[in-house]
Amino acid sequence: MATITKKELIDRIADSTQAKRVVVKRIIQSFLDEIITELASDNRLEFRDFGVFETRSRNARVAQNPKTLERVKVPSKRSVKFKMGRLMKEKLADASTVTEQA
Amino acid sequence: MATITKKELIDRIADSTQAKRVVVKRIIQSFLDEIITELASDNRLEFRDFGVFETRSRNARVAQNPKTLERVKVPSKRSVKFKMGRLMKEKLADASTVTEQA
Repeated sequence: MATITKKELIDRIADSTQAKRVVVKRIIQSFLDEIITELASDNRLEFRDFGVFETRSRNARVAQNPKTLERVKVPSKRSVKFKMGRLMKEKLADASTVTEQA
Repeated sequence: MATITKKELIDRIADSTQAKRVVVKRIIQSFLDEIITELASDNRLEFRDFGVFETRSRNARVAQNPKTLERVKVPSKRSVKFKMGRLMKEKLADASTVTEQA
């Protein structure tokens, strides 16, 4: 298992598309920045075949531990949920070495 | 809450970067395709400020319902987990309208 960085993908895409590295870098960075901006506005991003990004919000609340009956403050939280698209699901299933049990 | 598509971001990035739309499209599509390929190989993608994509695997197993003691087959599954990066976390906290309780 390797870790792939943005730089590595930019180099690869510059090679494969014959576009200038500086152009590829600007476009990829704009793409990632736009996603962040849209998520910050609670918009949903849907990229066909790839997947969906959306925010989940939970207000601050007081919860109770059912065993100890202790009351605990749970702070508000906004997170991002990613859901795989069709093609990603298929590719991950194809490449899987785990045998599915009927 | 709106849904933003790949097409919409491509149009926006073509406008803002002054690159040809066809070039932007090819670069964004290559980027998304590379991510899928790497995840299918169980590699981790780390984009500074944006976040991390990684796969989670669970082998097929037999679980037991603790209440009924019934044994159930749980099939194998590979999924993708997205974890927000520093900048995305900050932007989502800034834009939050929910007041944090101390």
